[in-house]
Order: sequence, then C-alpha cells, then structure tokens
Amino acid sequence: MKYPQGIRQSNRQVPSSNRSHSNRGMSLEEDIDLTNKYYLAMNQAVIHKKPTPIQIVNVHYPKRSAAVITEAYFQQASTTDYNGIYRGKYIDFEAKETRSNTSFPLANIHEHQIEHMRSVIDHQGIAFMIIRFTNLDETYLYGVEHLFEFWDQQQSGGRKSIPYKEIKTAGHLIPIKYQPRIAYLSIIDQLYF
Amino acid sequence: MKYPQGIRQSNRQVPSSNRSHSNRGMSLEEDIDLTNKYYLAMNQAVIHKKPTPIQIVNVHYPKRSAAVITEAYFQQASTTDYNGIYRGKYIDFEAKETRSNTSFPLANIHEHQIEHMRSVIDHQGIAFMIIRFTNLDETYLYGVEHLFEFWDQQQSGGRKSIPYKEIKTAGHLIPIKYQPRIAYLSIIDQLYF
Repeated sequence: MKYPQGIRQSNRQVPSSNRSHSNRGMSLEEDIDLTNKYYLAMNQAVIHKKPTPIQIVNVHYPKRSAAVITEAYFQQASTTDYNGIYRGKYIDFEAKETRSNTSFPLANIHEHQIEHMRSVIDHQGIAFMIIRFTNLDETYLYGVEHLFEFWDQQQSGGRKSIPYKEIKTAGHLIPIKYQPRIAYLSIIDQLYF
Repeated sequence: MKYPQGIRQSNRQVPSSNRSHSNRGMSLEEDIDLTNKYYLAMNQAVIHKKPTPIQIVNVHYPKRSAAVITEAYFQQASTTDYNGIYRGKYIDFEAKETRSNTSFPLANIHEHQIEHMRSVIDHQGIAFMIIRFTNLDETYLYGVEHLFEFWDQQQSGGRKSIPYKEIKTAGHLIPIKYQPRIAYLSIIDQLYF
C-alpha cells in the first residue's frame, strides 16, 4: 500500500521558485481545510474532511498517559474525502493535485470512489472534483458527469488521463484569494442554485 | 485522552446470559454498519461511518512492503460519527450505547458534537441520535431538539443525564430485525417525509 497523498503532500519540499504569491506553497488540502473552516465560521456551510482510514493492530496503554498506537496501517478510503451540507443540499467531493502540466491521470481516482460519486448523484446530491495543476498554480472545479465520461472511456480501452485543456474548458477555474482561500461554493451557487 | 468507545466496544466481553436472541451480542456500531451496507446495496441511501481521527507521529517504510505507523494517538472527533444522503436530504447522526437502565449520561456527548448538530439543523439537514440501552436491549432514535433541551439545561446546572423514560416517550423504538438490522430510515420516513 502506498503512503496516502495527503500526508506525503504536507512533507513535500516545494522549491521556492515554483511558489507563486497566491499559492504560498500551501497544499490543496490545506487550502480546502482553511476554506471549510471559513465557511463554517461564517455559517455558510458545514463541510469537513473525513479522517484517513487506518487499521489499528496494536495499542499500548501506559499508566497515567494517553493510549499509544504502536502498529497500524493505512487503508484505502471507500468514499471521497470531503462531504457536508450547503443550502440544504448534500455536498460531496474529492480533491487531487497533479504535477503534470498536460493532463490529470485517472490513476488518482479509485473505482469505489467513482461508484460512490455515482450513488451521490443518484440520490440528488452534489458531487464534484477539485483538481489542482500544481506547477501551473491553477485549481478547477470539475463536474463528475465529465469525469464519468473519461472513466467509462478508459474502462473500454480509452486514454488513462483527462487532458488539461478539457478540464480548462469543461471545468471552472477557482480563484485563489485571501479569504476564503478557494471559494468553490460560489461556483456551486452558479451551477446548482 | 481516553480510548475511543467504538474500539473498546468491539473488544468488550458481553456475558452470554445478557445476550438476547435479537441482539446476538453485536455492538451498536456493528448493527449500524450492517444496516448502512444494506441501505447502500439496495440503493436506498448512502450513509457511512467516518474513520476514527488519528494523529500520526511516526511512520516506518520497510522495503517492498506497506508503510507501518509506529506511533500514533487517538484524537477527539470534531463532528458526529455518521453522515450521508437519503432521499435528497443530508443525514447526520451520532450513535451511543449505555449500560445504564435508567438514563443516558450526557458525558457521552461532546460540546463540539452538539454545535455540529446545531449547524446541521441550521442548514436544513436531518440530525438525530441513535441511543441503545444495552442491558435492556432497546435502541431508540432520539431527535436532537430534545437532546439540545437537556444539554442546555445541564449547562445551567440541570441534570447530567437524560432519563430512560424521556427517551422511551420522546424517542422512537427501532426494532431489531434480520435485514436491515436496525431500520432507522423507516422512522426518518415517518418524521421528515
């Protein structure tokens, strides 16, 4: 099993020359966490990241101090990373960064995450991807209806990635601001309300 | 920090004389997991338990095998344990067992969980508690509007628990069946649709 992306990202060394002023070297996960905290504080939405699922094998109980997990393993998530409620609607999304400048590799998504997003749509929820092209410093909200198309094409031997140009055209650029960092809900306003 | 209830429960030794046929010694968490799997398989709802939040301190990377977490600690959850979507509505709940026969101790709930449930209601979601009296083998769906009342009374010096009789009266008994184990959504149907 690979070390999950979220953890790796926070340890990642980004050369300072690649950092833009707007991005400030923050990972997409950090940006989304700050944004969700802002939305919650402003009483605009209740959206949280789910904890990384971990299989616990051994726990040690020292006297007079906290239990220590001494052996555990990362598990693959069975759903997407983020969900919650906004304007009475169920919101569900997955966020991914890529270092590619030309395409988003579908290997970043798992089959059960696709199935989960299809179920959310079936039940009248709002599901989407937030995709960041790290080197380009561009972050897009990308509708799952497009994602499903590329996913299904891949299953029948099609390309293994979504071209950057497709995401630029069919997706919605999310501007990076001071507060909230990435105002993805204003795009949801335009698309769904 | 205390070892989280969910893990402790699954290791718990329940004397066989206390087990009823309907309960079969399953923990509330196991019953809800089975029920949610059934709802998902039947395409009735998409509701999942959030993983236990864990703070990772040390990870070891052996060659040619999975990363091992060698030091980690349990963190307190900032929200409730379960959420998802049902009939287009956002669903959010916390599930707790008590061995008391006379009342449900409010110490089982944290302030930030109450705040989270208040936010869910503010945003037109459906929030509730599932409370099991283990020794009585009775499981109730209990609306948060009642919970908030007892919580607020406690804050101003009131009692530290909700009487069993109150939960029996204001709550809704969930029958334990073969499939789904605890059909809590049929009660949600009556209350909200």
